[in-house]
Amino acid sequence: MQYRETKIRVRFNEVDQWGMVWHGHYISYFEIGRIDLARGFGLTPTDFVKMGYTAPVVELKCNYKEPARNDEELIIRTTLEKPTKAALTFKYQIVRKGDKKLLVEGETTQVLLDKKGELVLIIPEEIKKKIDELLVYLDK
Amino acid sequence: MQYRETKIRVRFNEVDQWGMVWHGHYISYFEIGRIDLARGFGLTPTDFVKMGYTAPVVELKCNYKEPARNDEELIIRTTLEKPTKAALTFKYQIVRKGDKKLLVEGETTQVLLDKKGELVLIIPEEIKKKIDELLVYLDK
Amino acid sequence: MQYRETKIRVRFNEVDQWGMVWHGHYISYFEIGRIDLARGFGLTPTDFVKMGYTAPVVELKCNYKEPARNDEELIIRTTLEKPTKAALTFKYQIVRKGDKKLLVEGETTQVLLDKKGELVLIIPEEIKKKIDELLVYLDK
Amino acid sequence: MQYRETKIRVRFNEVDQWGMVWHGHYISYFEIGRIDLARGFGLTPTDFVKMGYTAPVVELKCNYKEPARNDEELIIRTTLEKPTKAALTFKYQIVRKGDKKLLVEGETTQVLLDKKGELVLIIPEEIKKKIDELLVYLDK
Repeated sequence: MQYRETKIRVRFNEVDQWGMVWHGHYISYFEIGRIDLARGFGLTPTDFVKMGYTAPVVELKCNYKEPARNDEELIIRTTLEKPTKAALTFKYQIVRKGDKKLLVEGETTQVLLDKKGELVLIIPEEIKKKIDELLVYLDK
Repeated sequence: MQYRETKIRVRFNEVDQWGMVWHGHYISYFEIGRIDLARGFGLTPTDFVKMGYTAPVVELKCNYKEPARNDEELIIRTTLEKPTKAALTFKYQIVRKGDKKLLVEGETTQVLLDKKGELVLIIPEEIKKKIDELLVYLDK
Repeated sequence: MQYRETKIRVRFNEVDQWGMVWHGHYISYFEIGRIDLARGFGLTPTDFVKMGYTAPVVELKCNYKEPARNDEELIIRTTLEKPTKAALTFKYQIVRKGDKKLLVEGETTQVLLDKKGELVLIIPEEIKKKIDELLVYLDK
Repeated sequence: MQYRETKIRVRFNEVDQWGMVWHGHYISYFEIGRIDLARGFGLTPTDFVKMGYTAPVVELKCNYKEPARNDEELIIRTTLEKPTKAALTFKYQIVRKGDKKLLVEGETTQVLLDKKGELVLIIPEEIKKKIDELLVYLDK
């Protein structure tokens, strides 16, 4: 399996006066997918803090193709890129559950900060192991 | 002056598909008014933490009379009730800036918790002094 | 069954800097429960618009007992009061899925407005029938 | 003047459990800046609807350099790129009011849809005139 699928349903208060999901809410959907994927491998925000790190998002990209509507069921497809440096890049696709139509695509990049807030330049072994397990799960 | 006035403008992403501010966002407006009033007297959430407490909201009431619309300028009128026990009750009115029409009324009650999360039964002297100063400002 | 149960999981961006779900987000949880109950009976916001009405919330009450935390699974229990006038009052309990501990209780009251925005004084027969079916489902 | 400056203050409910503004809320800040710039030239979402169009965001990019904190005052600097096709690209900088430190940079691209939801391939004259006026204001 190349990505993790997470089901959500659009909330009434996420829809704007044009009847579409407001574009900023997809950032929240991405995070739901990312954490749902990370949970099984000890890579959630809470897990990072337990290991002595935070993992803030430093870059975000998002492309909107079709709007999601009120009460629609969506599938978030989340995958992790194989890291080439001390950063984690997750990629996302939001598809409509009914017809599997691709609505939104995006990616986020996170870095690691230590307890002093300093940038971590090499992924610590403890975290690298978890990432490798996650990549095996994703068949990468 | 019986209340503090704080100006805000309705954000596009706060309006629902019926063209009205979604009813939950007024809770955020109340908090903007409460913190704007509390800031001058050392009673913000950050101030409470510095003094060794948190002040969670334990009760909320809200009455909706007229909807606010996209991009409208609003005035939040915030006042603090004179405490009769170890709790802080703020009251709020949201009025339209243009015609001063009352749109929403509400109140929140907060208690104090100490560092162990235990309920504080008597308002500490340090906090009582700040509350008294705030009540003088409100001419109460 | 006296109430409808809806499962949700706390989102990372719903938790405040004190590590608790911010108190305003429970209004969104209530709405998720309300719409999940209403969906099967044709009483969602979209259904109201199709029938020529809107159903704005005019009153909200909320009592907070224990905070929900990041990533916790919660159950929203929603029920509808038997209407005594042209208004719909839903009641809610938010409980922690793990130990069924009651965290938050609340209620919302909605009225009906027609296409001109005028208050509807008697519940239309078409809507009354749906409400009666919902009450039967709730064994009321 | 090369950009419009809009002042905001971070809201308590925009800060995550790490004490930083949650990364998705900057999308809302961008929109505040965009609409504040567009308001004087008849290019707000409401104005587009009056002219028979909607202007959905189709692309979003965001780079995070430093976190904003609770209750901080920020300045949103917004500018519009000179259009080279039938699309509107706004660019944003979020700086801390106190020391003018750059915290976040981003851009959004919007297209125009007509009443049928069809993509508009040439910017209509009425809208082009408003854009030109806005570009003169920005000294572009």
